[in-house]
Amino acid sequence: MATTQTSFPVDQRHLKSFGPISTPDRLLLGPGPSNAHPSVLKALALSPIGHLDPFYVDLMAEVQELLRYAWQTDNRLTLPMSGTGSAAMEATLANTVEPGDTVLVAIKGYFGHRLADMAGRYQANVKTINKSWGEAFSIDELEEALSKYRPSILAMVHAETSTGVCQPMDGIGDLCHKYGCLLLLDTVTSLGGVPLFLDKWQVDLAYSCSQKGLSCPPGLGPFTMSSLAEKKLENRKNKVPNWYLDVSLLNKYWGSDRVYHHTAPVNMNFGMREALRLLAEEGLENSWNRHRKNAEKLWNGLERLGIELHVPVDLRLPTLTTVKIPEGLDGKGFTLHLLNNYGIEIGGGLGDLAGKVWRIGLMGYNSTPENVDKVLNLFESELPRFKQNFSVAA
Amino acid sequence: MATTQTSFPVDQRHLKSFGPISTPDRLLLGPGPSNAHPSVLKALALSPIGHLDPFYVDLMAEVQELLRYAWQTDNRLTLPMSGTGSAAMEATLANTVEPGDTVLVAIKGYFGHRLADMAGRYQANVKTINKSWGEAFSIDELEEALSKYRPSILAMVHAETSTGVCQPMDGIGDLCHKYGCLLLLDTVTSLGGVPLFLDKWQVDLAYSCSQKGLSCPPGLGPFTMSSLAEKKLENRKNKVPNWYLDVSLLNKYWGSDRVYHHTAPVNMNFGMREALRLLAEEGLENSWNRHRKNAEKLWNGLERLGIELHVPVDLRLPTLTTVKIPEGLDGKGFTLHLLNNYGIEIGGGLGDLAGKVWRIGLMGYNSTPENVDKVLNLFESELPRFKQNFSVAA
Repeated sequence: MATTQTSFPVDQRHLKSFGPISTPDRLLLGPGPSNAHPSVLKALALSPIGHLDPFYVDLMAEVQELLRYAWQTDNRLTLPMSGTGSAAMEATLANTVEPGDTVLVAIKGYFGHRLADMAGRYQANVKTINKSWGEAFSIDELEEALSKYRPSILAMVHAETSTGVCQPMDGIGDLCHKYGCLLLLDTVTSLGGVPLFLDKWQVDLAYSCSQKGLSCPPGLGPFTMSSLAEKKLENRKNKVPNWYLDVSLLNKYWGSDRVYHHTAPVNMNFGMREALRLLAEEGLENSWNRHRKNAEKLWNGLERLGIELHVPVDLRLPTLTTVKIPEGLDGKGFTLHLLNNYGIEIGGGLGDLAGKVWRIGLMGYNSTPENVDKVLNLFESELPRFKQNFSVAA
Repeated sequence: MATTQTSFPVDQRHLKSFGPISTPDRLLLGPGPSNAHPSVLKALALSPIGHLDPFYVDLMAEVQELLRYAWQTDNRLTLPMSGTGSAAMEATLANTVEPGDTVLVAIKGYFGHRLADMAGRYQANVKTINKSWGEAFSIDELEEALSKYRPSILAMVHAETSTGVCQPMDGIGDLCHKYGCLLLLDTVTSLGGVPLFLDKWQVDLAYSCSQKGLSCPPGLGPFTMSSLAEKKLENRKNKVPNWYLDVSLLNKYWGSDRVYHHTAPVNMNFGMREALRLLAEEGLENSWNRHRKNAEKLWNGLERLGIELHVPVDLRLPTLTTVKIPEGLDGKGFTLHLLNNYGIEIGGGLGDLAGKVWRIGLMGYNSTPENVDKVLNLFESELPRFKQNFSVAA
């Protein structure tokens, strides 16, 4: 063998000496991540076990079953992707889109644009319809577009994290199937916190994240696919053009064969199992009602303070509220003030709403009346003071 | 707005009542995951903070800098992908392969095949050269293939987790650049445990995982790219056909702009930062020497017991040892025996080596003389007993 191995002195230029990690205390009331439940964090810190260990295999089945409950679906292919919500988002398209397929994206915020970008990367013929950031689509608007474009997939966002709008779902699934089209739904900011009935709504593809309504840190992306969507995957002419997210391979690991695909993020799945267990223990209706009640307390309180909300009440998401930044106020300065002086994170606007709204999340573990009071008290005491300081400084 | 929202009763069929999570004690001496360092697990359980929090932004830079140290590279684009090692593997190809590019994969084990599969999904013209599972490539064999196929990328595995072979790297980088080709290297089972000099070796693309030499749970995939590889990315005609792993987008978040791409798996990155800090504290040479010393102790002990190793000593990986399963013995039965009765996980063979070898990992936190003694004692006491039981039962 003509192979040798020379050694070199180790280059120390990048050897920096950092102290042990110490994180600041934060109450995360932005668009996510939200604070994790303490018992989820405890589960996360358990010593890892093998991804083919019989114990882990049982845990996988438990996670799948509780995800079906949380989403209200019987879908066989229901599992957390080993990446964040965006990976699960991409998985819905990567597995089902074949080059030239028409994908219609109903865009009413930032994440609709992301769906369109992703679909294009899988060589879809992407068509879009658009609404202002703060509105939802009506059944008639969707039917008009379906009949015009005759897409293979209609992709839309249930809970738009960028606008705080909750898309009403009545009739959309029926409509899609009447037009021979799969329904793909983003439930990133709704899973666990807002009523979701995937099977009743006839949703074929959905995805979510771990760090919002589920009270788990970010890192996993729940994914689900109906038998109709499975059929589209099975009939593909070519391999899924994404190995990591290929459900036909993942199914061999998550299905009964348990064939190695990739080394699962076992600790994140410990956390996910605990998060879903807590949700099941509370019960879906109780969790949904809690989110609704605390959101209404926030909405009423803000309106009492004379602060306007961006979305009409019938379309408002209980998990995420968009608040109009009062005229003349430095919105970003105020959120930095809250972060640096009170350890409270509130989000700014994205895209069309950048600089126009704040985004206040009350999700999972963080949806409590105490947190609502904290926000309302700070808005009451700090906003006028800050406004004045800002005017003086400006 | 003609949109309404019907409510349904919650379907309780998937509502299962599981007790709080409780994991078995495992000493993970297989191909990975390996046990995580206790202080890494502690970091993992810290309360999450926002992915755009100034504190987190500092932490990202620390992770990047310590990864450069661990890999011995100055590459600007050095960051952990928000997925497991396989996602980082896919990222190396997804970002650089354009349809029709010739990618030469030097296959000497399971993960070489995976590289070829992935490259094909990105529409590469895939060429392969092959060696038996247990051998390495010589410079002459590589030159012959480079001159024959003139590829854009040569992809190969430094530390083959399926065979236990460490590929000697002398001269390969020079050769690739002489032929105008990028060098892509899998360092999944070498990072932290085996000498790695990416820049000295002129490696253009590399990836690794969190759960082996770094003593962190699985879930992140370190990724790095030279300026030469960056140029290939910049000159692409079309968008990277994978949104989640698109380095041109990720660079805006990990670079100085800090533009939101996806919600980072912040807790996994807390763990990664602590894992890299511990490696820096020990020092690379010390860690490499420790892995070498403990592996030699294992090799000598096994040979004293009359057990044969699969790989010749000059090509053996210190992090992962392939052990020939003695003739007539049920290899899988023995590993199950160790797992169920002693809580010790040892791996079986993959692909060509299925049923032929066991794989014993001594990686990161688990590379200790005490663990070597545990394995040797069990092999000495249990193997004969088990062999006999098996013979009687068979």
